[in-house]
Parts: sequence; structure tokens; C-alpha cells
Amino acid sequence: MELKEMGEFALIKHLTRKMRSYDGSVFLGIGDDAASFRVAAGRYLVVTCDMLVEGHHFRRVWTTAEQLGHKALAVSLSDIAAMGGVPRYALISAGWPSDVNLDYAEGIYRGIRELAEAYGVFIIGGDTVGAPQLILDVTVIGEMEAEPVTRSGALPGHVFAVMGSLGASAAGLALLQARGPENGNLPKSGLSLGKEPSPKQLPAAAWAQTLIGAHLLPQPRVREAAALLKTVRPSAMIDISDGLASEIHHICEGSTVGAEIDIHSLPVHQNTKRAGETLGRDYLEWVLYGGEDYELLVTLPPGDVPAVQKVLGDYGTSFTVIGRVVAREKGIKLLKGDGKTEDLNKQGYDHFSAKPPLCRMK
Amino acid sequence: MELKEMGEFALIKHLTRKMRSYDGSVFLGIGDDAASFRVAAGRYLVVTCDMLVEGHHFRRVWTTAEQLGHKALAVSLSDIAAMGGVPRYALISAGWPSDVNLDYAEGIYRGIRELAEAYGVFIIGGDTVGAPQLILDVTVIGEMEAEPVTRSGALPGHVFAVMGSLGASAAGLALLQARGPENGNLPKSGLSLGKEPSPKQLPAAAWAQTLIGAHLLPQPRVREAAALLKTVRPSAMIDISDGLASEIHHICEGSTVGAEIDIHSLPVHQNTKRAGETLGRDYLEWVLYGGEDYELLVTLPPGDVPAVQKVLGDYGTSFTVIGRVVAREKGIKLLKGDGKTEDLNKQGYDHFSAKPPLCRMK
Repeated sequence: MELKEMGEFALIKHLTRKMRSYDGSVFLGIGDDAASFRVAAGRYLVVTCDMLVEGHHFRRVWTTAEQLGHKALAVSLSDIAAMGGVPRYALISAGWPSDVNLDYAEGIYRGIRELAEAYGVFIIGGDTVGAPQLILDVTVIGEMEAEPVTRSGALPGHVFAVMGSLGASAAGLALLQARGPENGNLPKSGLSLGKEPSPKQLPAAAWAQTLIGAHLLPQPRVREAAALLKTVRPSAMIDISDGLASEIHHICEGSTVGAEIDIHSLPVHQNTKRAGETLGRDYLEWVLYGGEDYELLVTLPPGDVPAVQKVLGDYGTSFTVIGRVVAREKGIKLLKGDGKTEDLNKQGYDHFSAKPPLCRMK
Repeated sequence: MELKEMGEFALIKHLTRKMRSYDGSVFLGIGDDAASFRVAAGRYLVVTCDMLVEGHHFRRVWTTAEQLGHKALAVSLSDIAAMGGVPRYALISAGWPSDVNLDYAEGIYRGIRELAEAYGVFIIGGDTVGAPQLILDVTVIGEMEAEPVTRSGALPGHVFAVMGSLGASAAGLALLQARGPENGNLPKSGLSLGKEPSPKQLPAAAWAQTLIGAHLLPQPRVREAAALLKTVRPSAMIDISDGLASEIHHICEGSTVGAEIDIHSLPVHQNTKRAGETLGRDYLEWVLYGGEDYELLVTLPPGDVPAVQKVLGDYGTSFTVIGRVVAREKGIKLLKGDGKTEDLNKQGYDHFSAKPPLCRMK
């Protein structure tokens, strides 16, 4: 059997099925954004790793070295944030192909370091090897003085709410892809999205640059997660790396619940809609299935929402109710208005699916 | 500047030079076998990651899936052992090319799981992505109730001692390489070293199989390190992943000392010498520079040696004094007998050196 026939999540579940018995120190094993174990009474570490492989997750022609370093760390910080953890330490495993020069390598580490410093994370180790293409695998260890927030605690009657807006990263990738793999400009458009846009070009494409920025320089919601946890205790939390629909399924499977998502309530930035118009694409595809938003999806009692909106407002981050947790029997539904509903399919990015991913690259 | 001109260790030092300021929680940052931070008074975690990349560190034609999984975990366990830590948790980042089928992937995880279970390690997480070739990056977290043993505490007057024997892994790799890249048999020899030797073939090449086994199935000295630490407190400890000479340099640089190594005292298995004769190679090259032995190199007061030899004897593991720690000014010398000495060059495997490595593969 080929791995791609199986799908990423089924593969992980299958390969690790005999590895899931733990001792009492393990609070969370395989299957959430991060793993967690107790180090003292009421004290937990959370740990995650995320691998980026050139050609699959990024192309050097599309990203500066600094952006790449930033993103490699950001995706792991996002996992820690999704547990409610405070990221503390990171290890960087890097595979270097022979055509990377020292300037580029330094740029990657500068991008990592600047983001690490912004969040008080120390780079304490890693590994350095030769490789046929650029590989970055970042392990982040975070701390918590409370139980990590899993994807398994959502309760019927709670609401789904999401930080920030959805689809911008996928729209940014679509804009990059529209330039063609060899860094050409957008066809049929007046946009000039050069690798390093000059100050003259940039204003003309500013809206597009914000979307490309969302893809290349995701901002993990570490501070927002900490502020949220000081205010309320959510029943479930997950970061949107594989697409909103996929993450809703993860929460529903983990929590044995169903979902009703209001399609008209999904927070979408105006620029994302504009990219859809420009490229002749349905922006809702990016919003539901695009992935790499690295926003946090939360379930919590509806009465807790205003307090969270208030504290997140201090960070300029919106917090939008997008639906309700319902009983499992009700399924996972997308409410399209006028009483129309349909099943919300998983369909997020799958590293092994035969279907081309919307967001990440093959 | 090209990375390979720089050398692996210089590159790490250069790229991470601005990342090495830590807070008081960090006991050891970048630059030892593993990093370490305090989680409570007198309680430390040690953490390490090691990346294996197909074509650079292994070839699928040479290794079974189970062996590969075993080795991917073993090299990180060895780093934890080198600190004196008890490995507890592991995370597996895996990059899967499209030509790996489910059987092979299952075999890798079986190899990981069996070794993990043997050492009481729980696989608590990881990442799974598509990649152009097979990549395995394993993070291991261990615990200690005492300060980790670094490479920086060696004192003049102490001796260097090493567990087990040296050069077997490099000899095993040389035997694999002699078969040619496409799994051909050894030229000019009666050996038949098929991928899966039949029971009939195996006895004829048993001595060679033990060497190939040392390369493909290294046994981390986790139990031996624990037993040693219950008996004495070594001044420095390191695992031999990059070659004995390179590790001696690491200890000497870390501890600001020199070394006198007696070439005739180096423990070498008879099979390693036999491989040298068979292949027309100098086995001392493998012993000094081969690497991937995953034996532990220790410095300690000479009076502590018999006690360690006694406890390691319970594991059938030898512990051989190979030289002395001396003042830094005396340099790092190889004593060749009859008063002849020469400088012991570093020259271990370097992932970026232009010089072809003796042990690992390009």
C-alpha cells in the first residue's frame, strides 16, 4: 500500500497505534498539537516538532532566508500556543544542501533568533547535517502551570470562536503560485510581486503583499493564548495549520461532538476576497481548506466570549464566534443561510493525499 | 562562502554565536551532546535531536526498515546517555518520499518502538510530512536527578577511558561500501553479504555481519552510563559519534586541557582488524576517525577505573583506559610507542568537509 493512499492522519494513527500506552507522567501523547508530560505537581511541559522540507513546504525563490527561519520556528510556537503553553526552549535540526551559502544560512538563523527573542525563547540545541535540499525541523518546549488545553474537551452548548482572520495565508500562496514556479510576475494583472519588491512596486501591490506576508511570516498567537488563559478556561483549543475544516474535525473527533459552522460568520479579510476576485478563485476554499493560518480555534461557553474579546482587543486581535458545538449525532455541518446546510468535509491539506493541496506545495 | 568550506562545527558555532545567552534555567545550551535545563531544584531535563537523511546517513538498500528505525532512535539515546541522563520521551519527525510503502514505514516504527520499549522511552509526538527522500529526526528528552555530565570538566591527572571497542561501525560501513552502491557482493572475497542473508550464507560471513551490525544497529550505552554514574562521578563524558579523535578534541576544547592517547591501548575487536586485512585498509583509521561507534568516552580519576570496570562487567561491557588528560600546553598527542608521538588531528567525520568522510556517506 502506498502512503499517499492512506492520508497523513490515518498514517500517523496507524504507525503509532502500538506506541500509545504511557505511564502516569504523560499527560498528552501522540495526537494533539503538542505532547505534554508532568515535571512536578501541577507543572507541565509541552513539546512539539515541525519539519519544513524545501519543495514541499517552501521554495527558496519565494522566501527570504529570514522569513524562512521565522516561519520554521513560528509553526512550532503556534502549536505550543494552542496548548496554552509558554514557549521556553527550542532545538533546530537543519539539513543543508551544498548550494546554500553562508549568507543564506545566517539569514535563516537571524529569522529564527529574532522571533525567538520576541517570545523569550532560548535556542538550546539542534543538529546540523548535509542534505539534498534544505530541511528545518524545529522542536519547541513550553511550560504550563495548569493542565494543557487539548482538542478533546469541547462540550455541546459551547461555541467555536477563532482569532484573527482566515484564508490569508492560502491566498498569499495562491498569489505566489500565480507568478509561476520560476518567480515570474502574475499573468494578466498589473501586480508586480518581485522577490524583493522595490519601494516603488510595493505600494501598488500592498494588499497582495499583506497576504503573501501572512503566508511567509505567520505570527503565532502566543501572547493571545496566554491572555485568553488568564481570562477563561476554554474547553478545547487547536491551531489552524491544516485548514479550518480539518481542525474542526479534529476537535469533533477528539471531543466526540458535532459542529454547526455559520459560513457567513467566518472572519475573512478584505484582501483575501480581493485576491479571490483577482485570481478568479473562490476565497471560501482558502478560508475552509487553505490551512497555514496559524490562528487559534477555540471552544468555550458563549458567556465567556465577551471577556476574551476584551483582552484580545489589547493585541488588536479579533475573536469571532463562527458556530456551535452540538451533539455528535448532529454531524459536522456548514450552515449556508436560508436554512441550507451541508456536511463540512475534512479536506484540509493532507501531506499524502493524491489531491493537490490548496495551500502547501508538492 | 560555501558551507562545506567551513566545516560542521565551525558552522554551528558561527550560526549560533548570537543565540548563546540564556537565563538561569538553562544548565547547558548549544555545544554539548545534549542541552539541559532545570525543572526543579536538583532536577534537570536533557534534550537532544539527531537527523538522519537518506543518501547522507543511510541507504535503504543497505538497511532493513527495522534497523533504520532502531538507529534513528539509538543515536539520540546515545547523546542522552553521554550526559548521564535517563531517556524518557521521544518525538519522531519523519519525511516520507512517495516510493516508501506502508510495510517499510511500519518496519521503521517497529524498530523505533522495540528500542524505545527496551529503554522505557515513550514516543509522545512528532511530525509527518512528504519529502523527496526519507528523513528521520528524533528528539529525545531525558531526566536527571544530578547535574548532567558535560564535556567540559576534564582535569589534568585524570584518564581517558572508553566503553566497548572502536572502529567496528566504520569497518561495517566499509564492508557495505565494498559491495558497491547497488548491493553487489564483495569483490575478490568469498563473502556473501546479501541484504537479507540466508541462514546458509550468514555463518560464512559472521565476523563481517557483526561489523555491519555495529554500523546498522548501534547499541546506545544508556544502562552502562546509569551504572557508571551510580558508582563514580566522571569529570567529562561524550559519545563517539564523529570519531574518537574528534571527540577527544571536543573534550580538550571544552575543558581547556590536553591529551596523551596511547595508540596501543585502543580497544579494537579482532573482527575490525580482520576487515582491515580483507579490504586492504588500515583499521586504525576507522578506530581514530571512523565515527558512529556510539561508545562513551569518559574522563575520570584513575583510581575510579576499577570500580567502573566492575559494574560495567555486569553488562559485558569493557572499560579501557586509553590515555591521560594533561595540561593544555602539552597539546593533543598520540603516543605511538618507543617514545614516538605525533599530534592527534581532529579529522573526524565532518558533514561539510570537502574531504570524503570515512564513516558516514555523502
